[in-house]
Amino acid sequence: MKLATLKDGSRDGKLVVVNDRLTFCTDASHIAPTLQAALDDWEHVAPKLELLAESLSHEAVPTLRFHEHDAHSPLPRAYQWADGSAYVNHVELVRKARGAKMPESFWTDPLMYQGGSDTFLAPRDPISMRDEAWGIDMEGEIAVVTGDVPMGVSAEAARDHILLVLLVNDVSLRGLIPAELGKGFGFFQSKPSSAFSPVAVTPDALGDAWKGGKLHLPLHVDLNGQPFGRANAGIDMTFDFGQLIAHAAKTRPLSAGTIIGSGTVSNKLDGGPGKPVADGGVGYSCVAEIRMIETINTGEAKTPFLKFGDTVRIEMHDTEGHSIFGAIEQTVEKYEE
Amino acid sequence: MKLATLKDGSRDGKLVVVNDRLTFCTDASHIAPTLQAALDDWEHVAPKLELLAESLSHEAVPTLRFHEHDAHSPLPRAYQWADGSAYVNHVELVRKARGAKMPESFWTDPLMYQGGSDTFLAPRDPISMRDEAWGIDMEGEIAVVTGDVPMGVSAEAARDHILLVLLVNDVSLRGLIPAELGKGFGFFQSKPSSAFSPVAVTPDALGDAWKGGKLHLPLHVDLNGQPFGRANAGIDMTFDFGQLIAHAAKTRPLSAGTIIGSGTVSNKLDGGPGKPVADGGVGYSCVAEIRMIETINTGEAKTPFLKFGDTVRIEMHDTEGHSIFGAIEQTVEKYEE
Repeated sequence: MKLATLKDGSRDGKLVVVNDRLTFCTDASHIAPTLQAALDDWEHVAPKLELLAESLSHEAVPTLRFHEHDAHSPLPRAYQWADGSAYVNHVELVRKARGAKMPESFWTDPLMYQGGSDTFLAPRDPISMRDEAWGIDMEGEIAVVTGDVPMGVSAEAARDHILLVLLVNDVSLRGLIPAELGKGFGFFQSKPSSAFSPVAVTPDALGDAWKGGKLHLPLHVDLNGQPFGRANAGIDMTFDFGQLIAHAAKTRPLSAGTIIGSGTVSNKLDGGPGKPVADGGVGYSCVAEIRMIETINTGEAKTPFLKFGDTVRIEMHDTEGHSIFGAIEQTVEKYEE
Repeated sequence: MKLATLKDGSRDGKLVVVNDRLTFCTDASHIAPTLQAALDDWEHVAPKLELLAESLSHEAVPTLRFHEHDAHSPLPRAYQWADGSAYVNHVELVRKARGAKMPESFWTDPLMYQGGSDTFLAPRDPISMRDEAWGIDMEGEIAVVTGDVPMGVSAEAARDHILLVLLVNDVSLRGLIPAELGKGFGFFQSKPSSAFSPVAVTPDALGDAWKGGKLHLPLHVDLNGQPFGRANAGIDMTFDFGQLIAHAAKTRPLSAGTIIGSGTVSNKLDGGPGKPVADGGVGYSCVAEIRMIETINTGEAKTPFLKFGDTVRIEMHDTEGHSIFGAIEQTVEKYEE
């Protein structure tokens, strides 16, 4: 089943069920007005939405053309956005670029930060920033939406609490990160509003690609129309989503609608850093990673961070080449107060 | 105006208007079903709630006895909980206790962390933890709830976006903090669910005590029925709530219902650390602070963190001795899975 939230002028938008090919949708607001309302009562609501999805596939209900640019992020605002950093390869490279050794514990104890969840961007909204010099970057990631998760859940049991899967652009301000992390309290200003894919899908709709709490397909990240990243989200993911959820729920329960992110998708190449797509590699899911590799290789980062006017596109295709979640496509622009 | 959320079996509870003395309340759900719904449309809803509060004060509407133990946190779940650390005195002591110098910038650039906001505790809910050895502690704080705040707001303009004021117990797990902050991504497991006071009040209802974006009254923190802290929230608050909101909104807008915390209320004594209430001082708003002072003075922390069975009470009185927000009163207990 595939779900989306259409913009309707309200804060939380309107829930629709989308067909598999993302061409049509049907109003689901008589079942649950919003995605959050559906998640709040998933046990009762999901079977009804599944029936509606079945009817939609037979064109047995009124249908509308589905336009990705009419969609909000599936949850336009959420009660929790917790982002892991499960591709430890990426973390190791960050450290290596600044000459720091990564603690061994990073391979066994997930990194996770609490993100802001009150003002997500729609998947086609611009990234409006006041200052280009803040070092604007995208981070292409996979995320899951959970139901209610009890405190102290095991990693294995946690997988059963995954209700939806989607993509995220975890927009980051690289220029603000060192000073902010240096203060010791984690990210805040350096992590502005994130954007999510137009469509969220249930794990069963992913077929064989969803296995062991991971999504085994390449994440397509394009920068200004050129392939920038094709890293496989199922490879080099040190912690699966079950482990990330269990980490988040160690000292408190998680409420329905919690979004847990994978962190920037990143693949090694023969045990070392990856190569750009243009050089036959799988590339990168953020600009910071290519800059780190440039720094390690040549002593200097050459690829600039995002500038006003740059466009980022994040998407994932199934094995037949069809878009699974629709595309996040955002242009960076100057914020006018 | 004073507002509360009564438990009614739903996730977000039911909005009521409470009288000034916290003895009676009246159903406000015909105006807005929940506090979040009221905040989402504050401009239209607030005047109607004010009229209802006026009617309640004349007993011109049906009234119910208001029992604090029937109340949820005013927002049982919120889209954002961002906690500052505005009493820089407290931060300086933390550093001093471990022999570290505090950067000068901490006096001009607020510390703030993104907290979890999906599962707040009700003001009389127990603090249920799996392990006493995690170093369970309370943190008595003031918090404000904002309306929609534009990105890049000034500190002065930000004060006008403060819609409600309340108290918070920012429960902290001291034993988990050093390792977690050492990983560099800030708090997560070391900050479990917080609890808020039964009642949230509009700034105008605070009279002269609300001035310059600060609340100028002592915060009463009791531990096992004994006075533990009486620090004045208006004293030694380096950053007012306008500055904290502006800090949070530097790189993104804030959505209505955002809760911003002050950090642990802490007063100096003659420029140095404060004394316990029993010794004639104003005491402390968390156990960690007295432990830091013990460490500085004697080389060893003597006061233990909270144990199963301990009870914390956080409250604030107006100049006539009446409770303004009702009391947060929580017993620490073992979490049974």
